[in-house]
This record gives sequence, C-alpha cells and structure tokens, in this order.
Amino acid sequence: MALRDQEDVIHEGSFVLLYLDGKRKYLTRAEKGHVLHTHRGYLLLDSLIGLRYGSRVRSNVGADFVALQPTPWDFVLKIARKTQVIYPKDMALIVFKLGLRPGMRVVEAGTGSGALTCALAFFVRPGVVYSYDVNPSFQEVARKNLERAGLLDYVVLKVKDVTQGIDEEGVDAVVLDMATPWLVVPHAWKALKGGGHFASFSPTINQVEKTVVELKKQGFVDIKVYELLLREMKVEEGAVRPETLMIGHTGYVTFARKAL
Amino acid sequence: MALRDQEDVIHEGSFVLLYLDGKRKYLTRAEKGHVLHTHRGYLLLDSLIGLRYGSRVRSNVGADFVALQPTPWDFVLKIARKTQVIYPKDMALIVFKLGLRPGMRVVEAGTGSGALTCALAFFVRPGVVYSYDVNPSFQEVARKNLERAGLLDYVVLKVKDVTQGIDEEGVDAVVLDMATPWLVVPHAWKALKGGGHFASFSPTINQVEKTVVELKKQGFVDIKVYELLLREMKVEEGAVRPETLMIGHTGYVTFARKAL
Amino acid sequence: MALRDQEDVIHEGSFVLLYLDGKRKYLTRAEKGHVLHTHRGYLLLDSLIGLRYGSRVRSNVGADFVALQPTPWDFVLKIARKTQVIYPKDMALIVFKLGLRPGMRVVEAGTGSGALTCALAFFVRPGVVYSYDVNPSFQEVARKNLERAGLLDYVVLKVKDVTQGIDEEGVDAVVLDMATPWLVVPHAWKALKGGGHFASFSPTINQVEKTVVELKKQGFVDIKVYELLLREMKVEEGAVRPETLMIGHTGYVTFARKAL
Amino acid sequence: MALRDQEDVIHEGSFVLLYLDGKRKYLTRAEKGHVLHTHRGYLLLDSLIGLRYGSRVRSNVGADFVALQPTPWDFVLKIARKTQVIYPKDMALIVFKLGLRPGMRVVEAGTGSGALTCALAFFVRPGVVYSYDVNPSFQEVARKNLERAGLLDYVVLKVKDVTQGIDEEGVDAVVLDMATPWLVVPHAWKALKGGGHFASFSPTINQVEKTVVELKKQGFVDIKVYELLLREMKVEEGAVRPETLMIGHTGYVTFARKAL
Repeated sequence: MALRDQEDVIHEGSFVLLYLDGKRKYLTRAEKGHVLHTHRGYLLLDSLIGLRYGSRVRSNVGADFVALQPTPWDFVLKIARKTQVIYPKDMALIVFKLGLRPGMRVVEAGTGSGALTCALAFFVRPGVVYSYDVNPSFQEVARKNLERAGLLDYVVLKVKDVTQGIDEEGVDAVVLDMATPWLVVPHAWKALKGGGHFASFSPTINQVEKTVVELKKQGFVDIKVYELLLREMKVEEGAVRPETLMIGHTGYVTFARKAL
Repeated sequence: MALRDQEDVIHEGSFVLLYLDGKRKYLTRAEKGHVLHTHRGYLLLDSLIGLRYGSRVRSNVGADFVALQPTPWDFVLKIARKTQVIYPKDMALIVFKLGLRPGMRVVEAGTGSGALTCALAFFVRPGVVYSYDVNPSFQEVARKNLERAGLLDYVVLKVKDVTQGIDEEGVDAVVLDMATPWLVVPHAWKALKGGGHFASFSPTINQVEKTVVELKKQGFVDIKVYELLLREMKVEEGAVRPETLMIGHTGYVTFARKAL
Repeated sequence: MALRDQEDVIHEGSFVLLYLDGKRKYLTRAEKGHVLHTHRGYLLLDSLIGLRYGSRVRSNVGADFVALQPTPWDFVLKIARKTQVIYPKDMALIVFKLGLRPGMRVVEAGTGSGALTCALAFFVRPGVVYSYDVNPSFQEVARKNLERAGLLDYVVLKVKDVTQGIDEEGVDAVVLDMATPWLVVPHAWKALKGGGHFASFSPTINQVEKTVVELKKQGFVDIKVYELLLREMKVEEGAVRPETLMIGHTGYVTFARKAL
Repeated sequence: MALRDQEDVIHEGSFVLLYLDGKRKYLTRAEKGHVLHTHRGYLLLDSLIGLRYGSRVRSNVGADFVALQPTPWDFVLKIARKTQVIYPKDMALIVFKLGLRPGMRVVEAGTGSGALTCALAFFVRPGVVYSYDVNPSFQEVARKNLERAGLLDYVVLKVKDVTQGIDEEGVDAVVLDMATPWLVVPHAWKALKGGGHFASFSPTINQVEKTVVELKKQGFVDIKVYELLLREMKVEEGAVRPETLMIGHTGYVTFARKAL
C-alpha cells in the first residue's frame, strides 16, 4: 500500500503516520514482525494490519497513537529531514502554479534525497518524472525513498549533469532545485514544449538574479519570483498567537513559461 | 478544450491565457467569430485555433501576445477576482497538505464563485466535489465557471445549508471557506472517513479560535493552523527587491484529521 | 510651538494633528486667520489657540476632530509622503539601535525632503545633524520642513556630494539613505569616532551586498542587516485580522560599528 | 560611566560591549581586578580603562575583541535574555511612535526585569519613569539593572498593582507590558494628560482584542495595533539570503491617544 493509493483499511506494507501529538508523529509501515520504538513505549506494527485508517492504537505503556494515512506533506517532511531546503509549502506552490496533473512529463534536477521527486511523481502519475543528479549516491537514497513511496514506477533516475543538457523533448515542465539553475535555462528551453513551465527553487537572491537574467535572455515570459513565509499559529482558547520560532526563509521560487 | 486537459495545440473552445506582460494577462477561449479587445488593440480569437500553445500572436496595432495554456492558478485568479478571499497560495497549501488525488470524494462549503471548487475538482477528477451553498445565485455563477473550466462533471452543486448537516458519508476531506466553520465541525466528523481531512479557511483569528475549540472537543487530531505570506520579488539585474505593495493577509488555514 | 517641545496647551504657531478617524488626520498649525478645509467641513485654526491638547473641536458641518500634539512619527509620515522610501518603522529602528541621545553629532546623506533629518535632529538636539545632499532644491524643501518643525537650529545643511568626502571628524554616527552608500564607507570610517555607528537604508539587496562588502573591507565590525515588516491589525470585537493590504517592503537597514 | 552618557574614552566602571563576532558579544564593565572569561580565553577588565571605545583588545589566547560602547539595544538584549518577551524592535517602535524626549513623565507596568524601563528612562531622562510591579522580587532585579545602567535616578519603582489604580496625573504616556492591560485602561485615562499616549505590548491577539474594546469604550482615539517582524539578512558576497531561523512573533503593540 503505497503513498500513491488511497485506502480505508491498512494493509500489510501500507504507510502509516502514527500521530501522538502536535510535535510527535512517526512515519512507518505496517510490516509483520516489525516494532516501532518511541519515547512513549513501543508498538507492534503487525497490529496495524486490518485496522481502518484513523484508528487509535496503544503502546505497551498505554500511550494512544492515531494511525493516519500519510500525505505527500507528511512524507516529504520525513524523508528529507536532514538535507531539506525546499519545504512542503514551496512544493505546494510549484504543484499548483504548474497545474501538475496525471500524464504530464516533467524533468527535475537535482534529485537529492528524492523529496521533491516524490511530490512531483505523486501528482503526474501515471506520467513520468525524469530526475537528474550528478551524484550517484544521492540517487540511491532517492531510489529507496521512491520505492518505499510506491512511486518509483513513475520516475526515471538519471546520473547525469543537467547543466550539460537535457535528453527529453516536449516536456510539460522543468523543475530545478540545484546550485546553478541559470546554467540549465537554455537546456530547459529546448526540452520544454510551447507554453511549458520552468520552475526553480533557490535559497539565495543572487541565484534568482542570475536565473531571471538568463530567462529573459532566452525569451521566457510570465517570469515571476515568489517567496512564501509560513507562520504557524498557536491556538489555545483565549490565547491565540503566532508561534515564537519560525522558519524565516527556505528559498525563492522562480517561475517562467516558454514562448515559441 | 477544458482546464482539465493538457494539449499541445489550441482547439476550438480551448482556454487560452493571452500574456502581454507581467501585469496584463487575458483569460479567454479560442472561439470562432469572437474578438478580444485590449488596451493594446484587438485580437481575432479564431486566429488562435490550430496554433501550438506558446505561440506569439499579434494584435491589430502590432502588440505581441503569447498564447499560454492556463493552469488552475491563472484560472482561479481570473474567475474569482471580485469576491476573492482565498488566494491560489492558500488553495495550493490545501491541495498539497490533503494530498488530493484522482478519485477522491470531497465536501466543500460554501461554493461562492466556484474558484476553490475548480481547484479541488481539478485535482480529484474523476472523483467528485460535493459543493454546498445556501445562496442559489452564487451557485449559478459557480456552475458557469465550472462549465467553462470543463470541470462541472466532477462537481455536485447543492443549494443547502451545510451547518444543518452533510448528506455524504465516508468522504476523504471536508474543505470550508465560510463564515461559521465551527458549526460544521460535528457534521464534518460524521461525513469523514477515518483519518479524513478537515480544512477551513478563515480571514479572522476569532473564527480560527472557535473552530479549533470545536475540533478539539470533537476529537480531531493533528490540528494545525497556518498563515501563508506570499511576497513577490521584483528582479531587475543589479536591483532586486521585494515588491512594495503586498497582499498582507488573506486568511488562516486550519487543518485537522479525524481519529476514530 | 515646535515639534521639539512638549506642551499641554496649544499656542499660536503650535503644530496640531487634527484626528478625524483612523484614516484621516491633518497636520496643521494654530495660525491666526488660517482655515483648514477637509472633506468634513472647515475649521478656523484660530480657534485652536489656548485649547489643551486632546481637546475636541468641531467643523462647520459638525464633524468632531481631536487636536493632538504630533510626534516625529506623525510628522515624518506627513512631510515625506510623496518621495518617501524610508518609513517611520525604519527610522525607529535606527534611532534605537544607535542609541541616539542629546548632544550627539551625526552625519546624514542624502537630505531628501528632510524627513529622516527631522527624526535624527529630534533625538540628538541640542546636538547637531550634518546633512549632505548634492541637490540644492531638495535642501530647500528640507529647510522649510525643518524650520516648520522647529529643528533647523540643530541641522547644518550642506550642498555637497558625500561620495567625495565628509568634512566632519569624530562624529557619533553616519546615517545614509542614498543610492550608492558603498561609496561613502571609507569617508564614514574617517568621520566616525572609535566605536561610532554606521547605518544605511537601501531598497535593493544589491545595494546592501555592495555596502557590506565595503564595510568588511574597511574593518567595520558588528555588521547586521535587518528588514522590518510592519503589519497593521484590524481589531473589531469578534473579528480581528491583519489588514489586507500591506507595505510589503520599504528597504533593508545595514548597521556596523567602527573598530579602531 | 553609565549607559546614559556618551564618552570617547573608557573610564573605570564604564560599560563595554566586547565584540568577538556576529554571534558572540559580552556586556561587561571596566572594573579593576575583574576578569572576563570567554570561550576564546580571558581578558583583564582593568586593561580596558583608558582605552578609546572602538579599540581592539586581545585575550590571553590571542583572540581579538573590539571594545564598543553599548546602546540601549545591546543593553536590553543582554539584561532581559531569559524573561524577554518584548524585543528591542518593539521598544524602538514605542520610543519613536510616542516621540519620547527629555523631560517626559511616563508610567510603566509591569517592571519585570527592567529592560523596557531602561529603554524608556534612557530617552526621557532627566524626566521620570514610574514603574509599577506587584512582584517585589522582580523590582529588585530591575533596580540592579537600572543602577548598573546609571538610569536609576530617573525611575520610581513602585511595588503596587497597577490594575488597582495609578497615583500619578498629567503624565505624557502609559506603557504596559503585562498580562491584563485592559484592566488598566480606565486608570491610564485618568493618569494621562490631554493627547497623552497609551501603548501596550501583548503576545496574544485575545489580549489585544480586549484592550482595544476597552480603549474604544473609554474614548481613546487614534487606536492602532501593529506587529513588527524583524528579518535578519545573511550577507556573503554572491550569496545573500534571509536567515533560516527567525523569531516569528514577539507580540502586538497597541497605541492610542487620550481625547479630552
């Protein structure tokens, strides 16, 4: 039971997000013989099989967990925790701005841990994501994450330097999360179909500037650069306020479209 | 040719976003005998038929437009311009956080002009959106917008007061954009399947507070309240800065999941 | 009665901020024979003389105004409305970060309309602000504003190009609001006393980058760059929310201190 | 040598901010026989006496520090680090919005650790701050901080419950940083002179709502509620970006003025 499916009942192998409280959630699978150890006791993962999603399960020390079906949001937050720069809020913006839909063909670089790859594949399947990365070890990590997510069938992992060229043609979108996106702009132009989407995530404003200069030179139109700030609110009755600590910056997202 | 499809070539009836510059875009359709009047001259919409998306077309006074395929982002920005409270950035967050996917069944209220309905239908089709609104005249506007978007087949419009109850059961998500979301919380609970998603957009913090109190009382878990700030960057070479004017607030989005 | 003084009673010539409602305030003076025309009727300004600040006065059509003593905040908002880039929030940050106090000597450039000059002079008087601008016509505008504010005695207006050098030595602070602050960094270094403050306001990130590079090269320490976002809240009982429209960006403020 | 003075040379007893790098600064005094221990070695504080501010001093292990004169910004950041809710950015807004100037009389509550008291006293001296707090132990901490800052002469510390009344009359401003500011509104009205300023800092939106309701009921005008977001920028040549982690919320500041 993979991330791509939707089910009411937990099967063997299904992903489960075990929710304890607002700060503690565990992404796991309902696998026979496996055990999840938490700060609030352990859970036999066998016991999840056959339950309906939303059910409460109890650890050996009596802590109550809720067994939820993870969404791409939960998934990318968990698989990418260490190397993560691009956050779910930014991925959401890309998915919606590009209007990703089943059957689309998307080029992505770099693969990294595969978090963004998962998000893209989730929305374009049974389409395909061609994911470039020069680093084979990153791609191995991504392959495992995509396999676990049940999305590997919709991804072609390519150990290649995307600044040297893109093999595909007539693709719907090129999505970049890499250090030198401006070097890919001419290749993206060639790879994209008419009206196709370019999207690039960059932490620094200098990367954005260079990329926009290239996009204009190349003839892209509808160039937009956005930054999203996500504030979480702390809501107690009679005491509502934004959270004190906040991720103040992840990066800027640059969008453009190919004019023929 | 509707919003839901993806095509390389513009057919009769296809939606076209005619891009002039960063501030001026026109959402129209390639219809025989129709003319689009702009501040930079007029265009015969016949002439779009048969062109590839991304093509440049010229108005009678020589202004160049690019004929792009609109995405949900462009679409909801245009159809909802006057009554708009919920913005594309917020819709994007909802779509991604809920992991909307083909086949899902979603309850929505209120319908309003149908902008959010379009966004939901776009991602769940061939699933279905049950959209409630007490106001029949709103639903007529929404029906036209959904029909134009080619998404009406995936929407059941209901002239009903959702605070009195929800007819559906076992739905994947309940999505609210209405004045009194807290009154719908018990109905949402009954309508949702285990682990199902509750999402509510509200401009004021008081609405959020009341809704969260009800969600806790009802036993929902993983309650999160977010506010998204979207900054647009103005990128000229050697002069990069955020835009001076900004939409400072649209609303808060409250998320929760049903625990059995 | 100038901005610099504090009084309980309105004298002839005193500044008065006539408050009608949250959106409409009029900065004027209690001058004999003068009349203030508003959308809600006219007021004889004679009639203000002798009143206590805080008093209500009525226009000829019966609209109630409150006669308030303006603060630097009100003053700079009014005198600088057209050319304004640096906002009161940014001036406040500079005043507090630098610890401006009576007796300090501050170099400022460019003078512009004199809004920032007023703010600086207000806090350092009976110290002095040396204010540079190449444009004599700007300085004439500033002179009038400073005179009206009763702060001209504490300002030396200099029609000079500050990128060519600063005449003063041993000053407490150099405060810049100009297009090329990085060209002033070596001159600021010479002009400042040990530990003295450098502050520069710039709308674009490129200006900030060049300035910080120069500051590091010159040996400045404690370099900090801040951006302030000011959100106004709309507070009605039961309906509290941030304002929809917001000034999303004014500029960045760069601070540094001179190490000997 | 206290915070209130400005000097070029470090005297015995002078405050010194020893700057090591962007993250490490030490607030200390030039006291005979005292030693400052840091992660980068120790410094004999005797050795500071007689130096000019801005001078570099070296620890026993060869680390270079710069001896800066602290401003209120540095001071309140250091003395209030543990209990701090109101930040320098918010204090700056209050100082500037109220136009605090020498000679003013201000009522403050609660005293807390005295951080805000210091800031107010710094700008109104030789005026006076009447600072209320029910908790005598807080006031002892504040007394020490004010004494060290050389500002105690301008502060009257009162162990009293400000919600029961304010003793002073005709004051220029009432500034609150306490849990129940709305209970003080009628007392503030009585204490303020005509046109006088009310300012209140509150972390939650519910406190703001109650306070604004009371301010309107009491007849205050020019009611404004602001929230300030301070973003720090990370500026390396060719790699400029906002800092990843940010204080996302400190509180809201409510302003109002007394109409007679």
